[in-house]
Amino acid sequence: MNAEIPKSHPRYESLMARRLMTDAAAEGMLAASALIAHGRGEAFDYLLAEETSSPAKEARRRAATKLLAADNPVICVNGNTVALAGTELLQCAAIIGCPIEINIYYRTIDRIHALENSLRSKQKEILSTECPQEWGMSGDEWRNAIESVSILGAGGDAKIPGLEGPRAQCHEQGILCADLLLIPLEDGDRCEALVEMGKEVIVIDLNPLSRTAQRASLTIVDELRRVARGLVVDLLQIRFRGGFVTGDSLSELSEAALLEASLEAILSGFEKLAEGVASRPR
Amino acid sequence: MNAEIPKSHPRYESLMARRLMTDAAAEGMLAASALIAHGRGEAFDYLLAEETSSPAKEARRRAATKLLAADNPVICVNGNTVALAGTELLQCAAIIGCPIEINIYYRTIDRIHALENSLRSKQKEILSTECPQEWGMSGDEWRNAIESVSILGAGGDAKIPGLEGPRAQCHEQGILCADLLLIPLEDGDRCEALVEMGKEVIVIDLNPLSRTAQRASLTIVDELRRVARGLVVDLLQIRFRGGFVTGDSLSELSEAALLEASLEAILSGFEKLAEGVASRPR
Repeated sequence: MNAEIPKSHPRYESLMARRLMTDAAAEGMLAASALIAHGRGEAFDYLLAEETSSPAKEARRRAATKLLAADNPVICVNGNTVALAGTELLQCAAIIGCPIEINIYYRTIDRIHALENSLRSKQKEILSTECPQEWGMSGDEWRNAIESVSILGAGGDAKIPGLEGPRAQCHEQGILCADLLLIPLEDGDRCEALVEMGKEVIVIDLNPLSRTAQRASLTIVDELRRVARGLVVDLLQIRFRGGFVTGDSLSELSEAALLEASLEAILSGFEKLAEGVASRPR
Repeated sequence: MNAEIPKSHPRYESLMARRLMTDAAAEGMLAASALIAHGRGEAFDYLLAEETSSPAKEARRRAATKLLAADNPVICVNGNTVALAGTELLQCAAIIGCPIEINIYYRTIDRIHALENSLRSKQKEILSTECPQEWGMSGDEWRNAIESVSILGAGGDAKIPGLEGPRAQCHEQGILCADLLLIPLEDGDRCEALVEMGKEVIVIDLNPLSRTAQRASLTIVDELRRVARGLVVDLLQIRFRGGFVTGDSLSELSEAALLEASLEAILSGFEKLAEGVASRPR
């Protein structure tokens, strides 16, 4: 896996994601089971032909709208999320004006520190570039927006009620007081506990059948990196260009029906792959 | 992941497999991408409700029959295989009377040695137990059968034609001269190269759409540990109890049609899970 992956490779994005994950594992950012979880996601994305479905796109746009309308939104990240989409989620937080909280299942202080360091160095990396034109801000405003994203890591002075062990730990000024959470790749128990607290919980999960996907307020069934990139664009579109011209039939669906449609998209992707194979000479 | 997993846990087998994999990773037996590959398999097994389908069972029985009928069968193993089913595959090799060859994609001498050591210690562990009754052998015969399994690891004096790099390396007395190979979790290129050599290649792969699954002579679409355990039973049944009483419709199918049936089993498992979720109150 050390060779350069050519951009022309048909599975470039998937191989790059795999590289980011194995690098993050080597840097101590991930629990042992994180790579296994990534593989489960890969399988579902394979059934989607590694493309964003229309219901996933609609769910992502709704997420962007909700994130900009919330009083106290927070973006929660774990190891996989930082490794795969830390930069894009920092950009999202800058556009929204919200903190990022590191909240991991197998919480150890070493891993929290590794993730904090990784996010802070990604933040510096963004600041070493120019303000992208599409942000519609002056250089100073942009710089200020990026710099203002507060990263809540070690410490954590509060607990999520109904959860046991270190994964209950959180920040009062982050998760505890939030009205809306964006939590890519969340675990089922914690998702339930947060919903029980009355929070609106948006998750990103490639398995539409998982407890997390089923219990969340809104579920985006898509690959994390595609979601994070798309979310930056959607947030900018709403903040600086007046939102979306919608009108397609998906915009009428309830959140639950949208999840159902995402499930159908994977199922029909699977059927399409199966048909392709059946018609191939062996 | 360090706590004891209670046997009563509904997902005991899957969690145990995950534990075996993370332990093997810590022991240097696995390439960085091995855990990701395991996760992909987990997703497909999840769609199968972690149960062996009827077509998979039929494929496994055919594999047992072929392995006992072949002139020079060889069982090939990689890191995941040794970690998850090394003991059972040693037992299979003892019943068949064939060697086990370590053949890994990211071949490094350290990993080959780690896998050799692991297999040799599993071999000793088996010998420290009593001959199981169902083997229908005397204690000496059994001991001899287990001890005689030759483990082909480092070295490797031959090359698989049409493949480049270290993964082409193999043993002349193993893969090169074999007429039949059982290769759990093989990579697509090598599977093709081996089929091109005129060998009969039996693979175990949870993704029925993979190139490996599609190119193999016979594909068992099932979780490796369930296959390996079942294969020990099937081999003993054929060798000591005159084979199977069959007569079900699956026994009429071609190998390709059987693979198709395995694919249908996963698809309908997925549909069943989806229906279960749709009817659940949210």
